[in-house]
Amino acid sequence: MMVRFDPIGRVRSKLSHPDQAPAQGPEAGTVAGIELDPKWQDGLEGLGPGRDVWVLGWFDLSPGPKLKVHPRGDRSRPRTGVFNSRSPHRPCPLSLTLVRILAIEGNLVTVKGLELVDGSPVLDIKPYAPGLDAPLPSEPGGES
Amino acid sequence: MMVRFDPIGRVRSKLSHPDQAPAQGPEAGTVAGIELDPKWQDGLEGLGPGRDVWVLGWFDLSPGPKLKVHPRGDRSRPRTGVFNSRSPHRPCPLSLTLVRILAIEGNLVTVKGLELVDGSPVLDIKPYAPGLDAPLPSEPGGES
Repeated sequence: MMVRFDPIGRVRSKLSHPDQAPAQGPEAGTVAGIELDPKWQDGLEGLGPGRDVWVLGWFDLSPGPKLKVHPRGDRSRPRTGVFNSRSPHRPCPLSLTLVRILAIEGNLVTVKGLELVDGSPVLDIKPYAPGLDAPLPSEPGGES
Repeated sequence: MMVRFDPIGRVRSKLSHPDQAPAQGPEAGTVAGIELDPKWQDGLEGLGPGRDVWVLGWFDLSPGPKLKVHPRGDRSRPRTGVFNSRSPHRPCPLSLTLVRILAIEGNLVTVKGLELVDGSPVLDIKPYAPGLDAPLPSEPGGES
């Protein structure tokens, strides 16, 4: 059974090629826009500058899945399972990025930390939730 | 343009109805299985007990999107934008849950903290990455 999604919007970015987007996360700091389909604009209510949100996107340029990948694409590092990596070479090529909202103007959400190329489809925006999204302290968490 | 995904596996859980799954996150603690399609089993290499991973799933029972929702389904709380919530009533009904791996046996990954009902399609597993998945300290992060 296939899952079908209609993207909620598109990335607007100066990044035009995946090679320009190796880093990820709030420290990477690329400022980009998410242009929502206007029909979903009211779904942004309650969000605003300073909020941290997850952006779920589609790696639409992914050339297809691999079972094993080099971590961060670094061929000097031994290959590991794709589910032990954040590689785009996934069976369901979904991206997950934590970003900080800088501004919301109409249907345009400007964020910091989004390393997706211009035109990338965006599937979802979710609020970061400290009680859900941090590992239990008993273990230090995994490596990327 | 529609996005099409073929799920990588299914949830195996004692939870059989969404009403049994109000909580989420590592503290909720429900032990469940992810039964991967055997063709993706080698993609688990490098993961093991104690690792924290994201599970991206499909809320296949979602009755459809709403622009405004009551936080956590609590009707006593004022409605907010769906993108300011973790509600299943999303345009692209994707779930995002941080879980801890308890065991991996063949194509069965046993995890703690997965509040999805039995049979839910799973689309992706990604390692938790401390450098990417925690907000910058300058802001305390958002509310759920």
